[in-house]
Amino acid sequence: LLTEKINSTEVTSQEVNIMQYHIITVGSELTLGLAINTNAPFIAKRLGQEGYSCTCQISVPDNIPLISKAIRDSLSVSDGVIITGGLGPTADDVTREGICEASGRKLVYQPWLAEIIKERYGQRSTPLPDITFRQAYLPEGAKAIIPTIGSAPGTILESDGKFIISLPGVPREMTEMIEKEVVPWLKSKYRMSEAFKVRVLRTTARTEASLQEQIDDIMKSLDNVSVGILAYPGEIQLQLLAKGPSEEIALEIIKDAEKRFVERLGNIVFGFDDQTLEEVVGMLLRKNNLSIAVAESCTGGLTAKKITDIPGSSDYFLGGIVTYSDDAKRALLNVSRQTLQRHGAVSAATALAMAYGVREKFGSEIGLGITGIAGPTGGSPEKPVGLVYIGLSDGTTSYTNRYVFFGSREIIRLKSSSAALDMARYFILENFEQDRGDAS
Amino acid sequence: LLTEKINSTEVTSQEVNIMQYHIITVGSELTLGLAINTNAPFIAKRLGQEGYSCTCQISVPDNIPLISKAIRDSLSVSDGVIITGGLGPTADDVTREGICEASGRKLVYQPWLAEIIKERYGQRSTPLPDITFRQAYLPEGAKAIIPTIGSAPGTILESDGKFIISLPGVPREMTEMIEKEVVPWLKSKYRMSEAFKVRVLRTTARTEASLQEQIDDIMKSLDNVSVGILAYPGEIQLQLLAKGPSEEIALEIIKDAEKRFVERLGNIVFGFDDQTLEEVVGMLLRKNNLSIAVAESCTGGLTAKKITDIPGSSDYFLGGIVTYSDDAKRALLNVSRQTLQRHGAVSAATALAMAYGVREKFGSEIGLGITGIAGPTGGSPEKPVGLVYIGLSDGTTSYTNRYVFFGSREIIRLKSSSAALDMARYFILENFEQDRGDAS
Repeated sequence: LLTEKINSTEVTSQEVNIMQYHIITVGSELTLGLAINTNAPFIAKRLGQEGYSCTCQISVPDNIPLISKAIRDSLSVSDGVIITGGLGPTADDVTREGICEASGRKLVYQPWLAEIIKERYGQRSTPLPDITFRQAYLPEGAKAIIPTIGSAPGTILESDGKFIISLPGVPREMTEMIEKEVVPWLKSKYRMSEAFKVRVLRTTARTEASLQEQIDDIMKSLDNVSVGILAYPGEIQLQLLAKGPSEEIALEIIKDAEKRFVERLGNIVFGFDDQTLEEVVGMLLRKNNLSIAVAESCTGGLTAKKITDIPGSSDYFLGGIVTYSDDAKRALLNVSRQTLQRHGAVSAATALAMAYGVREKFGSEIGLGITGIAGPTGGSPEKPVGLVYIGLSDGTTSYTNRYVFFGSREIIRLKSSSAALDMARYFILENFEQDRGDAS
Repeated sequence: LLTEKINSTEVTSQEVNIMQYHIITVGSELTLGLAINTNAPFIAKRLGQEGYSCTCQISVPDNIPLISKAIRDSLSVSDGVIITGGLGPTADDVTREGICEASGRKLVYQPWLAEIIKERYGQRSTPLPDITFRQAYLPEGAKAIIPTIGSAPGTILESDGKFIISLPGVPREMTEMIEKEVVPWLKSKYRMSEAFKVRVLRTTARTEASLQEQIDDIMKSLDNVSVGILAYPGEIQLQLLAKGPSEEIALEIIKDAEKRFVERLGNIVFGFDDQTLEEVVGMLLRKNNLSIAVAESCTGGLTAKKITDIPGSSDYFLGGIVTYSDDAKRALLNVSRQTLQRHGAVSAATALAMAYGVREKFGSEIGLGITGIAGPTGGSPEKPVGLVYIGLSDGTTSYTNRYVFFGSREIIRLKSSSAALDMARYFILENFEQDRGDAS
């Protein structure tokens, strides 16, 4: 245990090669495994764009000594910590106390903060419980970040040349404070002499190994760019991290690496950074004035859900039909009794008939049909769990693909809907786009 | 920095009050914020069921000194660490080296492991790249956990009375090793003299505050049970953690607390632990021999997707129709032109007409209709973003509810689909179930 007291001195603006910090997420729901931590990745990614390097993420329970120890340990090997969570009004919100214990400071009541809290809860008729005003206490010497939503103020504390930044755990409140207060404050304190750029290339390669094989020589020839390959259901990502003496040079380095990878990989690169497959498909549909409708069996609405995740998708998405029985496929999608009897519900013919039917029903340019066996039951030796057929119809031409996906029900469904979206993407690229550069 | 060398001595089976461990997740994709950590919550939750207490979760990049430091720091304040990730064959997989640096051991080549790796890749025609055999090295003295899927062995190492357990980062491989090897090994080493039980009560309460108000007196009166209240989109959870001198007594304590909360809260408690709302609705439909179909506008397939997340849902889910335009609502759901003109697409009348229409189309007992404005655009002063109507029809009786949800497009859609499922749940509870105890 570190025991030296951390003294308060001002950090002044400095040019640095590297700024390394830790993220501490506070909450027993995290250490009990009852919640997924999305705050740490958001902060790491956002500050990574500024060149700040997160070297450790720590989750601790709502416990003053454990919070305090995490802060002190982190400060002993980094330039500062960003803490989220534990700033609410209830008794188990003890991040304030943890910061004070770690920095040897006292909590000080701030009457002006109490006024803000009263105002924020102003519309209530009942008097505020005393406990609410725990949020009006700040560690001595801390700068408050006034919340525009919620009632928990964030704080920025400078202590012995290090920073301790504390933010609410509610994602909306946290992200707003990061953007409006934390990033500007850090930029005023740490001017980076070395710049970092992150770029994610998103592909529909089948496996990590097949992707690596295609680009191994490029990966080995790159200076100042580290490359990670990561697999997600229906997607393989190439994550590039470039380093340079300035923003411009780092950007040039990463752009050059990106160009080489994209030239090599061609159309399997569907997008960059936060772009999802459904966003790219939506963009291509919009650009080419096309509309789409989807008929789903095993994916049960997931494909329609993904397409409509995108704001404004009503401009090109006309609708979807989920049919879970042969009767429904016949009645709602006009799949013929003959097709179902001769080929079965899980077949190329049925997938195509579904695509054709849903296109007719909604009057869209493109119809997609997805049928398969998501499992865990329902498979047979001839038609195993994971067998999926996808059909696409534009009224004149028909396309079908057969897949055998491996994994849980959830993963088979995710892969199936990605494969359907990717089929629509290739259809548009090949029939409506002159060069794929337009898709990026 | 801890510098004392950790010596190798055997841990023998012992009765303990508490076993505290840390989870270390290794991967630069985590510290760069490019991936969400689902391994740590899985492990914490699973081992929590055995009474083992995760007091810290740490994520570090693929970096030997940082991995080693995290291990040594963790061992200095805990009984052991469980590490995931960084066991693959590529050069950036350095968890093996990190463990050796932390424990002062060497990596030793295991010919029998090399054989297993060769066998696993046996079907390939090309010879295996040398790099694959990095996975055949183990820290000196470590017990190997042979993978049944994948090629990365896990390891259990005992060092100076502490454990260092290392598992692959691929969730399927990791979860299998936890279940088959890690839990049995830990149970043979640590017999708990105090038992812990976790129970999650899942509710459709509107806000954390409204829930807390209803149960505040019970919360304050409980001994040996700590209670956390956590909000998710469309759901508020009550997380109970009980402590007792034995499994039986801890179970009794938590059952008693659960009973008091359930009696007080009634039907807003929809399920327990991992039970989802769609699972409970599915169970109620199945039990009462009912079928359902859903018509969706703003949720765009999300509700059908949730219902079909559940294996076997084809027994009660007949299908869904997603209509994103007035034309489609008329053509596919028989919503009348008059209804759309007089009340608008976002109205109680349209929601009900959709429910009625989809029920007719699929021939289901229950029809659900969801229409609203998910945003971010499309709102007006009379019909703001977040306004959602849900209709339910059973052919004879009609129900509608109006909601104004707050949040992002994603959150409004999640809340809308949860509200629709909850409406179905209440409908079945009130019309087909004698006492709600059956629903749990």
